[in-house]
Amino acid sequence: MSITVNRVSRYGARCLSTASEAVKSNNAGVPANSILFSMIQPTGKIHLGNYLGAINNWKNLQQSSSEGCTYIYGIADLHAITVPSKAEVLRKNRHEVVASILAAGLDENKCILYQQSSVPEHTELSWILTCLTSMGQLNRMTQWKSKSLQASSSSIFDDKVLGNTKAGLLCYPVLQAADILLYKSTHVPVGDDQAQHLELCRSIASTFNHTYQTGFFPLPKTLLTPSKKILSLRDPSKKMSKSDPDPNACIYVTDDPKTIMQKVRRAVTDSIQGPITFDPENRPGVSNMVNIIASLRNSTVQETASYLSFVKDHKQLKDVLSEFLIEEFKPKRHLFDKLLTDKSYIEQICTKGTIKAREIASRNIASVKSVVGFD
Amino acid sequence: MSITVNRVSRYGARCLSTASEAVKSNNAGVPANSILFSMIQPTGKIHLGNYLGAINNWKNLQQSSSEGCTYIYGIADLHAITVPSKAEVLRKNRHEVVASILAAGLDENKCILYQQSSVPEHTELSWILTCLTSMGQLNRMTQWKSKSLQASSSSIFDDKVLGNTKAGLLCYPVLQAADILLYKSTHVPVGDDQAQHLELCRSIASTFNHTYQTGFFPLPKTLLTPSKKILSLRDPSKKMSKSDPDPNACIYVTDDPKTIMQKVRRAVTDSIQGPITFDPENRPGVSNMVNIIASLRNSTVQETASYLSFVKDHKQLKDVLSEFLIEEFKPKRHLFDKLLTDKSYIEQICTKGTIKAREIASRNIASVKSVVGFD
Repeated sequence: MSITVNRVSRYGARCLSTASEAVKSNNAGVPANSILFSMIQPTGKIHLGNYLGAINNWKNLQQSSSEGCTYIYGIADLHAITVPSKAEVLRKNRHEVVASILAAGLDENKCILYQQSSVPEHTELSWILTCLTSMGQLNRMTQWKSKSLQASSSSIFDDKVLGNTKAGLLCYPVLQAADILLYKSTHVPVGDDQAQHLELCRSIASTFNHTYQTGFFPLPKTLLTPSKKILSLRDPSKKMSKSDPDPNACIYVTDDPKTIMQKVRRAVTDSIQGPITFDPENRPGVSNMVNIIASLRNSTVQETASYLSFVKDHKQLKDVLSEFLIEEFKPKRHLFDKLLTDKSYIEQICTKGTIKAREIASRNIASVKSVVGFD
Repeated sequence: MSITVNRVSRYGARCLSTASEAVKSNNAGVPANSILFSMIQPTGKIHLGNYLGAINNWKNLQQSSSEGCTYIYGIADLHAITVPSKAEVLRKNRHEVVASILAAGLDENKCILYQQSSVPEHTELSWILTCLTSMGQLNRMTQWKSKSLQASSSSIFDDKVLGNTKAGLLCYPVLQAADILLYKSTHVPVGDDQAQHLELCRSIASTFNHTYQTGFFPLPKTLLTPSKKILSLRDPSKKMSKSDPDPNACIYVTDDPKTIMQKVRRAVTDSIQGPITFDPENRPGVSNMVNIIASLRNSTVQETASYLSFVKDHKQLKDVLSEFLIEEFKPKRHLFDKLLTDKSYIEQICTKGTIKAREIASRNIASVKSVVGFD
């Protein structure tokens, strides 16, 4: 039952309409002069889920900008090392994610696009906040529980299980809070899997304000990402993931038209005949495809299901989906390939962003240090 | 029995002679071009234990310098906030500790004396190392166990006990490792209560070197502090501490001669008649006084016990101790008072030190970032 409830809320009309409105109506609910902050981990090739969940959303937010809003988008490489990888892999992943963001159409002149590890103020603030965050708060984080293989029903840490788990996994929600608060961000677009961490961030901000008798940090508001989770094409009970062993489960922004068509052709559907409907509980595979098309059309799933009334069978639905995907990615793929051959240009963009980010970060950390007594 | 063993090792001839040799014989065992690193927490007025354990030792190490050695001494204000205090208290404590260090005779031109929170590279490296340190390693730290009120016999974390304990207390040994490794320090003078943290530091350095297939970090060696722990004058089973409720238990560098004499007069001794002996197990109070005099004479406890053969009774021992203390602190107290009236001078010294520290820190963190793949 709980899975059903999750699915309904994931696709639920209320969430979708709220989020769509935010994009459609010029960031309704986001007042002028807001500071919007978001990050993406450089974990490798960008798939459809990353694209619709973060990158495309960043671009949409920026394009529907309210007056005087600041958009700060970071490449979260400090978070990426909670799972250590080789230096050359981390570098390659970073270049690819920046290339994908630029190829997706983000205007780097209208936002601050930067590399987290180039702004030392992130870890400075993170340490200050780590001293204000209780072990109990961190131990309650669902992602920590699952990543540390801890039984969610247990309230104790088992030393045997935890022995080899790295402390970075426990502490990274504090770094995430520091990322957000460093810029005194007012709005954070997140997927529902990050809602608990944003709640923690608000709690940490409150603790800081209370401990030091200040109103320095605003409590950042959640902006629900309009595009709901994109699921595996091969098993729509799971999220689309690049770690999926089935290569047909996941579509990359860099896939060529032939590959896209092949993957979509192999997508799981159902045996229900007749018109296409959006019914995630009974038709998870078809509903996933409707959701993807809706996201690409920047529309709701309900409106998209109506739009798809001309579709006669699953094969035709797959053709429509393939067409949308090929259309969406074609120009981006060329730009992406071109950008990746010019790494110095990518570095130049990031350096420009870092300078702008540090202007804000250094000013705010100086204030924080003064509040704490480090000045 | 374990207390007895501790006491013996605390005063043990082996430790003392090893450490004294290190100071006496021109840092014997510290080769030329070594990098010595140490820190002191700005936790308030400097008492005799801080003075002999850290500040005076820093000066002695510097004066008996080997060729080309670098001495890096930090004010650990990032560590101080694991127990949050008001900003003005932290600032006052920092000024006092720097004034004490300078008053003690440390030559700031021959070392790097700086404020930890002014060097952001500390927290940058700390985060990288937090991602390489296991929860098991941190959970085994004795100081964490005692500070988190955890039963030392238990191998599990009790969520109820830990609930309110701040994560900074768990993570600070990693920051401490980062402090040391940031300067590629080769030698670290520590008291025996920090030996376990230094062992952890070496282990973290090894993990970094192994994970990234590099030999970047040297494994720093322990330099045992020659002066053994200074105990409470009123209860020599405890360390001298400024948090002692009995004001006569603790002597401050800033105490005037009259106060020193009063406190020493009230010191606990024993009922054994005859010559003064160094026998911490049976004569803890007297042995503590012999140890203090030995430290002030820069000699061993054995030699000092012989030197004190002219002493007829406890009253005379106390007079001798008072005289040594008054003699030691008199010029320092005046300089301390003078320095505290000139805070801009203190800030100027720290700023100069910070510039020198960051020269090394920024070079080393750039190398670390390149090794990790952040460049």
